Amino acid sequence: MKKHNFSAGPSILPQEVFKKASEAILDFNGMGLSLLEISHRSKEFVAVMDEARAIVKRLMNLGDDYEVLYLQGGASLQFLMTPMNLLTENGKAAYTDTGTWAAGAIKEAKKVGNIDVVGSSKEDNYSYIPKDYKVGADYDYFHCTSNNTIYGTQMKSFPEVDTLMVCDMSSDIFSRQLDFSKFDLIYAGAQKNMGPAGAVLVVVKKDILGKTGRNLPSYLDLGLHIAKESMLNTPPVFPVYVSYLTLKHLEENGGIAAAEAKNEAKAKLLYDEIDNNPLFEGYAAKEDRSLMNVSFKLTDESKKEAFDAAWKAAGISGLNGHRNLGGYRASIYNAMPIESVQVLVDVMKNLA
Amino acid sequence: MKKHNFSAGPSILPQEVFKKASEAILDFNGMGLSLLEISHRSKEFVAVMDEARAIVKRLMNLGDDYEVLYLQGGASLQFLMTPMNLLTENGKAAYTDTGTWAAGAIKEAKKVGNIDVVGSSKEDNYSYIPKDYKVGADYDYFHCTSNNTIYGTQMKSFPEVDTLMVCDMSSDIFSRQLDFSKFDLIYAGAQKNMGPAGAVLVVVKKDILGKTGRNLPSYLDLGLHIAKESMLNTPPVFPVYVSYLTLKHLEENGGIAAAEAKNEAKAKLLYDEIDNNPLFEGYAAKEDRSLMNVSFKLTDESKKEAFDAAWKAAGISGLNGHRNLGGYRASIYNAMPIESVQVLVDVMKNLA
Repeated sequence: MKKHNFSAGPSILPQEVFKKASEAILDFNGMGLSLLEISHRSKEFVAVMDEARAIVKRLMNLGDDYEVLYLQGGASLQFLMTPMNLLTENGKAAYTDTGTWAAGAIKEAKKVGNIDVVGSSKEDNYSYIPKDYKVGADYDYFHCTSNNTIYGTQMKSFPEVDTLMVCDMSSDIFSRQLDFSKFDLIYAGAQKNMGPAGAVLVVVKKDILGKTGRNLPSYLDLGLHIAKESMLNTPPVFPVYVSYLTLKHLEENGGIAAAEAKNEAKAKLLYDEIDNNPLFEGYAAKEDRSLMNVSFKLTDESKKEAFDAAWKAAGISGLNGHRNLGGYRASIYNAMPIESVQVLVDVMKNLA
Repeated sequence: MKKHNFSAGPSILPQEVFKKASEAILDFNGMGLSLLEISHRSKEFVAVMDEARAIVKRLMNLGDDYEVLYLQGGASLQFLMTPMNLLTENGKAAYTDTGTWAAGAIKEAKKVGNIDVVGSSKEDNYSYIPKDYKVGADYDYFHCTSNNTIYGTQMKSFPEVDTLMVCDMSSDIFSRQLDFSKFDLIYAGAQKNMGPAGAVLVVVKKDILGKTGRNLPSYLDLGLHIAKESMLNTPPVFPVYVSYLTLKHLEENGGIAAAEAKNEAKAKLLYDEIDNNPLFEGYAAKEDRSLMNVSFKLTDESKKEAFDAAWKAAGISGLNGHRNLGGYRASIYNAMPIESVQVLVDVMKNLA
């Protein structure tokens, strides 16, 4: 039976990517060797790393003033690396608290220096995106989280700030057209729209680095990673390769514009059902609804057993809500076909 | 033509591991989903992570006073995490400088606190292992590197020290029987004997942690990783899975004892040829020769073109020496069959 994988991450990737990745493990590029056993400094893998970084710049329409890195440690390590690279010893940074991961970023940054939370929806269990805040030039940088996987909220626009703009785009990167040149630092764990677990993407405007006066540990130093062309140490070869395949697939299939159109259609299909079916209700404020993660619940808990049995019988997996929120969460990332969303919608309709 | 991969890392793994890893990318455990698209918190992957950690303890014959972690950032991030977790604010640590990676560990540790280099072969371009040093109880810990990939030297025994014993075993872990309970902290990048790039193994005696008084960033805190059972954040799912396959293969094929016997036979075959063939000479001091990385050079550089052509024609790859040393380096890790070493030896014989 066909499976419909609504997992929040690691999550669905294009089937063609799985096929090519599987082949590369047996024989990479006709070398007679597995991708897993070749040197990361072989010309074959250096070409993969260089092209992956180049595709990111093309997709984001960024110029030579930006650099792209593939690192390890996930967004979680970037929670630390951001203040280590951008926060001056006596400076301060502004953060919004829009969910579990945003709160994690704040927690780590506070270990490095002075952090002000300028907007928060924590008191309302992160059900909306705070918008009424200003960030002045007295801050070293502003940090936000573009999409909140657990709660299903997404920033539909970004504030104008008088300082550097930093964004954790882990769960909606490459899902919609943005003016990426408005951001000074973007990072994203690969395991949603751009690859498997084990790599984190960092896109940084070069001239913002090296200004804090801190003597950084090597692995935490973005400038050093740039100088070493994302190979300060052995990179996560296979995750980078699969990310390269995923981004190449995106570029060859209409780029971000085409992905965005599909994502809007998928989200509309599912949110319309949630709004029209009396058995379901959405969690997030309507104006802040995520196009990537749709959080909802049953209005009548007595239907839970029947609903759970029905979606499992339809081949759906990964629909349970995060343990922090409960209910259901349908993650409909770039690689999710609208046909799979229709399967879920049909199950919801049949329950009524 | 059959390939003989002497790459120093990432490096050869058992063919059976490549086959199973390739299959898991198309369909993992009959789930109808790729290993790359399932949640790291699915029961299927949690079982992999738990079993990988358990195999490490069984292979090392360690008890419940030790914990095993799979982290990201490679040995390079452990260069920082070691002093962050073990070095007190006013304390000091003792290091030996036995090669490029040992020097890297020292450099990072010096950014955290006071480090004494108690033994070094740097002046002799790391051609031997220093042995005449003592480490007293006034040090918070002692750090050494068991095998030096670039120079082809290996510690054949470990000193008795009056403090914690920390060892970077990246390039010879699981290659020989050791009393692992003499070590308090062991770390190793996976990409030699235990998997592909993208994961680092940490084995730590639990009661040594949490004693420095430092307020650690979350990702750098080994105690927190233990509390989260190696899933503080999304782990590198695929690298961990391939490491699990590699260690399972080792366990099912006689464990470390059987690997050690094979490694000794392979090394003897190759070092004997180097010593007996007047066209070649070894680099490392004989008593410190590594069983994993054999560094050698031609005694007559005019034979270089003929030798290079001959080993390439025989299907050999990855034989060029590291850029820091030149010459040749044959890496003969656990998964390297003795038949491939024989192919190299035959090429060397034919050159004479």
